[in-house]
Amino acid sequence: MGWFSKDIATMDDLFVHTLQDIYYAENQIKKALPDMVEKATSPDLKRGFETHLRETEGQITRLKEVFRLHGVEEKGVTCPAIDGILEEANDVAGEVEDKQVLDAALIAAAQAAEHYEITRYGTLVAWAKQLGRNDCASLLKQNLDEEAATDEKLTKLALDGINRKAA
Amino acid sequence: MGWFSKDIATMDDLFVHTLQDIYYAENQIKKALPDMVEKATSPDLKRGFETHLRETEGQITRLKEVFRLHGVEEKGVTCPAIDGILEEANDVAGEVEDKQVLDAALIAAAQAAEHYEITRYGTLVAWAKQLGRNDCASLLKQNLDEEAATDEKLTKLALDGINRKAA
Repeated sequence: MGWFSKDIATMDDLFVHTLQDIYYAENQIKKALPDMVEKATSPDLKRGFETHLRETEGQITRLKEVFRLHGVEEKGVTCPAIDGILEEANDVAGEVEDKQVLDAALIAAAQAAEHYEITRYGTLVAWAKQLGRNDCASLLKQNLDEEAATDEKLTKLALDGINRKAA
Repeated sequence: MGWFSKDIATMDDLFVHTLQDIYYAENQIKKALPDMVEKATSPDLKRGFETHLRETEGQITRLKEVFRLHGVEEKGVTCPAIDGILEEANDVAGEVEDKQVLDAALIAAAQAAEHYEITRYGTLVAWAKQLGRNDCASLLKQNLDEEAATDEKLTKLALDGINRKAA
């Protein structure tokens, strides 16, 4: 971003900037997931992360389509938010030895990333509609719904783990 | 955190670490909110941020009580996630000239912070219950409910703005 000019003049600029932000974020998550698959111990959690990796690839494809429909170049902008969320996930996971505690930490980290995506897609859907881009809104809504479903699955896995431990 | 040892050995350690993380996050949000009050143009949004500043102070008081109940020192640990979210909010806000676009950007930034808090409090409530700390869970749940209500209010403000513009 420029230091000497205000680069976001319109709602359209803000929409495109946020699209570039989530595009970068999805690509960073795609890079981070194989490591989470490897670190996870519970077979259900491993499978959950594998499924989410495939979903993330599909979400990136939808974002490329949104760029195309909106007639702007497909590119990312560095997103300090997702970088911070993934850095924190990595830091904490590196501190945990016990497998069960590590699974709990991995679920919490993944949910933090999901919630970042949920808030950004929620915003993008509203702005796309405001800009009269119902075609883009519909694709972004599909990503939003997938992220919300993944977050719910992770909550279920967390509670299952807790209940198993308590049993 | 140490470089030569795994510092998080148990679920209790993970709970305390995450408590320190959200304690740091709430304090950073408390510092960021007066600037957001100042930048907001819509009187409703200004008032919303002012209300949330007072709520944040109450949430910090509850967190202090959770530290006390759990018998651990009240302190924060640097949370790269909230630092990234607030850095991004600041970067984007600095790029926007138009008042209406800036309000939309501020709402989106605030919702990203809310969602970070929602996911952390959701996790902390579950872990507190798992650790048999229903007293802590109850206080953390109050913070969770407030954050979720704030997020809903922000969604409403965003849609009101959009509808006003469309009218």
